Amino acid sequence: MKLATLRNGARDGSLYIVSKDLQTAVCVTSIAENLQWALEHWSAVEPQLQAHYTQLNNRALDDIIQFSHCPLESPLPRAYQWADGSAYVNHVELVRKARGAKMPDSFWSDPLMYQGGGDSFLGPKDNIPLLDPDWGLDFEAEVAVITSDVKLGVSTAAASQAILLITLVNDVSLRNLIPNELAKGFGFFHSKPSTAFSPVAVTPDELGNAWDGAKLHLPLYSYLNDALFGKPDAGTDMTFDFPRLIAHAAKTRTLTAGTIIGSGTVSNCDRTVGSSCIAEKRMLEKIATGEINTPFLQDGDKVKIEMLDNKGLSIFGAIEQRVVMQDETL
Amino acid sequence: MKLATLRNGARDGSLYIVSKDLQTAVCVTSIAENLQWALEHWSAVEPQLQAHYTQLNNRALDDIIQFSHCPLESPLPRAYQWADGSAYVNHVELVRKARGAKMPDSFWSDPLMYQGGGDSFLGPKDNIPLLDPDWGLDFEAEVAVITSDVKLGVSTAAASQAILLITLVNDVSLRNLIPNELAKGFGFFHSKPSTAFSPVAVTPDELGNAWDGAKLHLPLYSYLNDALFGKPDAGTDMTFDFPRLIAHAAKTRTLTAGTIIGSGTVSNCDRTVGSSCIAEKRMLEKIATGEINTPFLQDGDKVKIEMLDNKGLSIFGAIEQRVVMQDETL
Repeated sequence: MKLATLRNGARDGSLYIVSKDLQTAVCVTSIAENLQWALEHWSAVEPQLQAHYTQLNNRALDDIIQFSHCPLESPLPRAYQWADGSAYVNHVELVRKARGAKMPDSFWSDPLMYQGGGDSFLGPKDNIPLLDPDWGLDFEAEVAVITSDVKLGVSTAAASQAILLITLVNDVSLRNLIPNELAKGFGFFHSKPSTAFSPVAVTPDELGNAWDGAKLHLPLYSYLNDALFGKPDAGTDMTFDFPRLIAHAAKTRTLTAGTIIGSGTVSNCDRTVGSSCIAEKRMLEKIATGEINTPFLQDGDKVKIEMLDNKGLSIFGAIEQRVVMQDETL
Repeated sequence: MKLATLRNGARDGSLYIVSKDLQTAVCVTSIAENLQWALEHWSAVEPQLQAHYTQLNNRALDDIIQFSHCPLESPLPRAYQWADGSAYVNHVELVRKARGAKMPDSFWSDPLMYQGGGDSFLGPKDNIPLLDPDWGLDFEAEVAVITSDVKLGVSTAAASQAILLITLVNDVSLRNLIPNELAKGFGFFHSKPSTAFSPVAVTPDELGNAWDGAKLHLPLYSYLNDALFGKPDAGTDMTFDFPRLIAHAAKTRTLTAGTIIGSGTVSNCDRTVGSSCIAEKRMLEKIATGEINTPFLQDGDKVKIEMLDNKGLSIFGAIEQRVVMQDETL
């Protein structure tokens, strides 16, 4: 099943079911007004939503609309919890190496995770506001899961059952604000402005064999200004899988339905597949030649993030965002 | 006006108006089902809520209930954004001094703020679960404001207008998990389990001259096992006032209605007034004698946090929580 949220002027938008081929959609607000509500009542509404999905794919429904030009919110336009891991530890090691710092061995066994701001996400086609080019605007292509309620201290084994939906992420970052924030010791705040998610979130069964209950084994494609930037496989070199990340997040508190847990920048040890963020490419340049050549995002740049199934069809739709210089006083 | 949320089995509870003397309350779900909704429609509902408040105080309403034994949620049982500052910089300097570290001068001009988890707060009378005594459970008595929508890049002057409500906080912390999390550089996560707020949140006009539009000039009382632990004045030695903290939070992203911005542990340079958390007392002991005598919270300990007006009456009601050892697998 594929779910999307259409922009309707309300903060949570309207819930739609989207066809497998992403061509058509049908409003399901009569079942669940929005995705947050659906997630909170999942066992009750999921069978009805699945029935609509089957009918939509069979073209057995009236009131269907073309999905391609719909005004989109992220599937959850806002979330009570957005916690982002950094599960591809080779990426962390690389970034540290580039600045001459050794990574603690514990990073291979103790996940990194930061608390993100979830009150206002960007939509998958929304512009990314550029407030100050000196802040080093970057994209980060990631995979994320959306959970049910999760008990305090959940085991990794049980955490797998909490995964209701899977989505793609552009974890927009302001690289040049990070060093000061890390030095202050309180984690990211200014350096992580609003995040964007893919047009649809999908149930695990949509992914077939590519989803093993813990990792998503498909390449994640990132494009910068229509040129391929990277296609690392999200299932390769993922040191901590999603159940492990969920269990980590729930170590000292419960997680409630609609919690989004991100993978962190997808990255493979095989550097020939490219990168999922500009920062990694810059670090590779620095290590290779001592010189950084790729600039961070500038006014007018276009970012596209997408994942294709084994037939080459888009699973989640594409995050497609343009960077637009913005007056800070707006 | 004083607002409370009663536990009703739903995630957002039911909105009630509470009388000035905290004795009676009336359900106002016919105006706004819950506080989050009220905050999102504040200009429309605030006059109606104020009218009910006036009638309640004049005992001119039917259907009033006694407030003292109501099952309470925090005013916002969950929030899309909970961002906590550390505005009493003398406290930060003290903690650093105790471990022999010099605090960067920039901390006096650039606020510290962390992104908290907001998906499930504790109620003001809820037990604090103790999972592992070695984690160093602590309370932190703070003041917080709840905002309207706030524009990206808002000025400090304009940010003052965004303050709709004021509340007290117990920012529950796990002190012994902090050093490892700070070393990892991604900020607090495990070390900040669910936070609790006072029984009522109040509009600024409730505070009279004690509220100057930016700071709350009254002592904040903390008790540990019925003994006074500290009564620092929240308006004294607050390096960054609330408008400044809001402007800081909105530097790179918008804030949406229902955002909670905390002050951080209230602390005065005059140490004779005591402390608002155990960690500060331990650091004072260490500096004075080289020996730490006060343990962190143990099973059965009671914490109370309250603020009184100039007549000695409770403004927000008391946060009163008991620490209860909990099986981690619950």
